[in-house]
Amino acid sequence: MAETAPKFLRPLSAPGADVGRAIGFGPDDALTLDCGRSLESWTCAYTTCGTLNAARSNAVLVCHALTGDQFVAGAHPVTGKPGWWPAMVGPGKPIDTDRFFVVCANVLGGCMGTSGPAEIDPATGEPYGLTFPLVTIRDMVRAQAKLLDALGIGKVLCVAGGSMGGMQALQWAALYPERVVSAMPIATAARHSAQNIAFHEVGRQAIMADPQWRGGRYQKDGTQPSKGLAVARMAAHITYLSEAALQRKFGRSLQDRAEISFAFAPDFQVESYLHHQGMSFVDRFDANSYLYITRAMDYFDLAADYGGVLAEAFRGIRTRFCIVSFTSDWLFPTIENKRIAHALSAAAATVSFVEIESDRGHDAFLLDEPEMFAALRGFLNAVAQSEGLE
Amino acid sequence: MAETAPKFLRPLSAPGADVGRAIGFGPDDALTLDCGRSLESWTCAYTTCGTLNAARSNAVLVCHALTGDQFVAGAHPVTGKPGWWPAMVGPGKPIDTDRFFVVCANVLGGCMGTSGPAEIDPATGEPYGLTFPLVTIRDMVRAQAKLLDALGIGKVLCVAGGSMGGMQALQWAALYPERVVSAMPIATAARHSAQNIAFHEVGRQAIMADPQWRGGRYQKDGTQPSKGLAVARMAAHITYLSEAALQRKFGRSLQDRAEISFAFAPDFQVESYLHHQGMSFVDRFDANSYLYITRAMDYFDLAADYGGVLAEAFRGIRTRFCIVSFTSDWLFPTIENKRIAHALSAAAATVSFVEIESDRGHDAFLLDEPEMFAALRGFLNAVAQSEGLE
Repeated sequence: MAETAPKFLRPLSAPGADVGRAIGFGPDDALTLDCGRSLESWTCAYTTCGTLNAARSNAVLVCHALTGDQFVAGAHPVTGKPGWWPAMVGPGKPIDTDRFFVVCANVLGGCMGTSGPAEIDPATGEPYGLTFPLVTIRDMVRAQAKLLDALGIGKVLCVAGGSMGGMQALQWAALYPERVVSAMPIATAARHSAQNIAFHEVGRQAIMADPQWRGGRYQKDGTQPSKGLAVARMAAHITYLSEAALQRKFGRSLQDRAEISFAFAPDFQVESYLHHQGMSFVDRFDANSYLYITRAMDYFDLAADYGGVLAEAFRGIRTRFCIVSFTSDWLFPTIENKRIAHALSAAAATVSFVEIESDRGHDAFLLDEPEMFAALRGFLNAVAQSEGLE
Repeated sequence: MAETAPKFLRPLSAPGADVGRAIGFGPDDALTLDCGRSLESWTCAYTTCGTLNAARSNAVLVCHALTGDQFVAGAHPVTGKPGWWPAMVGPGKPIDTDRFFVVCANVLGGCMGTSGPAEIDPATGEPYGLTFPLVTIRDMVRAQAKLLDALGIGKVLCVAGGSMGGMQALQWAALYPERVVSAMPIATAARHSAQNIAFHEVGRQAIMADPQWRGGRYQKDGTQPSKGLAVARMAAHITYLSEAALQRKFGRSLQDRAEISFAFAPDFQVESYLHHQGMSFVDRFDANSYLYITRAMDYFDLAADYGGVLAEAFRGIRTRFCIVSFTSDWLFPTIENKRIAHALSAAAATVSFVEIESDRGHDAFLLDEPEMFAALRGFLNAVAQSEGLE
């Protein structure tokens, strides 16, 4: 196991793309997956921010959501834009990189350098495509645990993440309770709902309906299922917002015209906005990766691994939890977050739960939400203090 | 103007398909559309149920929703299934065909015999495709008014419909108040919201991304954008239900298997259900028609025609209204229906408003909802009585 330049990258934008850091793991660190298959040779791409203290006790693992990646704080090498959580992670921010050593890894199945369907299968020298094994949230967490091992980090002060990142935080606490001092699952759920599975399936069908997808072999064929992926993103993007936010931002305002055009080009601002979301996503994300990661979320049902009783996932746990939900989030509504808090209480765990008034829907967790910042900053400071950190 | 066998049909299933009745209109009944264009020669397909009384005072016009058609009560000739509102319309039902003469027309732009993009353009002898003019809810209502003229019906006892059918009911009252004794707009809105426009645009993009769509010329090319249309339907179908209904009906139950398959075939019942919805829809609906009708809904904003003040649409109106919404309908939520009721009150119109507790989402209006039946039956009986009907 050695830190290397990533060998098997098939970067999204250009050969040799910056994926931050990457560690290649060999057979000694084979990853046995929930599906029964094993990855003998695999890579984990990640970034770090801040400095690991001598006691190795100030690490915060940040887990990304469906379409996020390891670029949580620094500029993104493909888009050139700031990382996906700049208001939360950085010097002086709630996850303060002046005090904490932040690690953020691209998830297994992702497309920014960690092994996934878009990467090269070392056994064949060709992109995996659909021959990559299906992964679960637990597999993602197992991969992250091996990354932390490689970085010499035993215990993390906190695992934090929103949406699918929150699923990983929960899975971390359930799987490795002794390694997790605290967890901040935000706008998430302990199981993916029927409605959310349904929306994911629409997105997958849109991708697979695109003839350029070619049964998942588009990389070898030199094609791109861009239209299908854009439709998937457009549909998903609506679910990330709220009706109120869409009404406030766009309402029925027209785009660059005074009258409706009686045509199918985008008349309304909300249509242009969605088109932009779809098109820019295609430039930075891989279609097969989208299939794999949505499926991992669909499969997530933490209680199912514990006889259907969520509290059993946390029995005897000493990890402290801070759970956050948003009033207008209909993708991961408050009730799902509360269910986690109740299960933790039933397991006699230490948990605080905060519902934040916001009309910004699910995406609120990525945005400037001072109440969330205050809650998480306070929680993390208290945890750091109890662990004897400055 | 004469009642004829429909001349220009391009039936969905087979040549010579049953469209109920159809009237062909000629230049004397040209339809001037909101887009500025005119249909000189057009057809309206419809069904009737019950008997028109001698005074011609017992007609009820039922308006269908986005994917409905004229087969409101009788068996559908393509699917063989009962009409789309069997619990509401029929002998002894709330809209009692033993007492009332029910007329239901396929909307302009539809695909069951009324002129629309799937029909033959009499000027060219070829399917219109995208050369068909874009239509509005008001255009649909104008066409229905000409149909009623042709049937010798001046005034209708009631105009009733849910969703887009409710938009038509509102537009009828605003455009022809003297012809509408009462109106029952159900689960609807006086304007299409930003979120709803967004969902429609996703559906349209899914259709237009399908290479079989061929710029709308698929009929001439002998292709079918079935995959795109199925994706559009799947996405839309989620919006017709509620999270609670999906959870209750499907939850995370697996389809014909005990364990997840670690594959992309449908593992979950909710996925199989959506696939079925998508595939069966393709058999009975035309892709271009879907584009046209969704656009007509997007364009609907009744207040905009009256200086932005919805009450002005109903100033001085004597039509009586009964408005119904459902608690779990997030596509046309109670607040949108209440807005109509408030505007009617502000216009000093007679309006009753009923919000019905249901977890079935928007589709509740099509289902067995006894409270809705009781409210509408009571309202319609009172209207009939005040009009001196038996």
